[in-house]
Amino acid sequence: MESSPAGGKYSTQAMMDGVERPSPSHANIHNHKGLRTGELALRAGALLLTLAAAIVLGINKQTKTVPVQIISTMPPVNVPVSAKWHYLSAFTFFVVCNAIACAYAFFSLLLALVGRKGTAAATVILDLLTVALLFAGNGAATAVGLIGYKGNTHVRWNKVCNVFDRFCHQVAAALGLSLVGSVLFVLLVLVAVVRLHRKY
Amino acid sequence: MESSPAGGKYSTQAMMDGVERPSPSHANIHNHKGLRTGELALRAGALLLTLAAAIVLGINKQTKTVPVQIISTMPPVNVPVSAKWHYLSAFTFFVVCNAIACAYAFFSLLLALVGRKGTAAATVILDLLTVALLFAGNGAATAVGLIGYKGNTHVRWNKVCNVFDRFCHQVAAALGLSLVGSVLFVLLVLVAVVRLHRKY
Repeated sequence: MESSPAGGKYSTQAMMDGVERPSPSHANIHNHKGLRTGELALRAGALLLTLAAAIVLGINKQTKTVPVQIISTMPPVNVPVSAKWHYLSAFTFFVVCNAIACAYAFFSLLLALVGRKGTAAATVILDLLTVALLFAGNGAATAVGLIGYKGNTHVRWNKVCNVFDRFCHQVAAALGLSLVGSVLFVLLVLVAVVRLHRKY
Repeated sequence: MESSPAGGKYSTQAMMDGVERPSPSHANIHNHKGLRTGELALRAGALLLTLAAAIVLGINKQTKTVPVQIISTMPPVNVPVSAKWHYLSAFTFFVVCNAIACAYAFFSLLLALVGRKGTAAATVILDLLTVALLFAGNGAATAVGLIGYKGNTHVRWNKVCNVFDRFCHQVAAALGLSLVGSVLFVLLVLVAVVRLHRKY
């Protein structure tokens, strides 16, 4: 297979595995070059977005002074109350998921730049597991964030976003960043599938 | 390509697309037959598990009589309280995700059995989107279920599982079923990637 000079197909395959070698000009090459550049851009984007999401939620903290009625015959006492990101286990899970995804995006980007051969299948598998991990983290943080935002009268869980407004905005920002990052990982798997589909 | 009788590779490809035709015996054929049978089994398993998860949570309801102190000088009054699955939006989301995944598993199983050609790429993409959907649903329901089970003192959300024990066990069962179903969808994407990887 490797000795077939006419194909153009095989040399592009080598390129996709990251080995740049002189090959005959062919419409497919540009196509595959585009796919490879696209993959690198997606990976870099996913890296930045998951990093930003982990940081935005991981430094989230707000302290507010709220009046609390301790004894009914006395005026309310001002008490400082804090909201911290690690108070809710779903937020901890979200930060851990995004940190793992970010670290993986970094190493897979390095691998893609170095162009190590034979790592395509492993990369698709790890991309897929990252998709599952990130969506689980997004789902968990969104569900808990929504309860904090709207409360739930059935189980008498009060909303907290009326007090901790900035804290909640920061949660929403982190969720948005992570969601876009997760979509980029989905696209990475799709690009890999399209690439494999075209190869054969 | 189709006229090559020696390959075995091309006839197995046709088989994988669902067209059964007599072909020479070859080690690869058994391999690919195994992959195809494996795919059908995975799809059927995912169908049953997501269906079971949607039903187990979708019929979840528990009514209990709890003593409530209305006036401090009077003995507590027994009040019936209910927990229903749709009281928490995360559980609604979970049931919807599993219902969608189940419906998709049904149609994709039909398609795989009929063996329509040229649907391989579309199937991988939809499998992948189902993975993302299911993990988001699992994450959301698990996060809210954990708060119901353990409560959270920081935001003063009380646990409810000490009252609604059967309800919570049913939530846990649904989560387990859906998680296994989600893993089967991950395996379906992996099988498709391995298949595409071998083909070229």
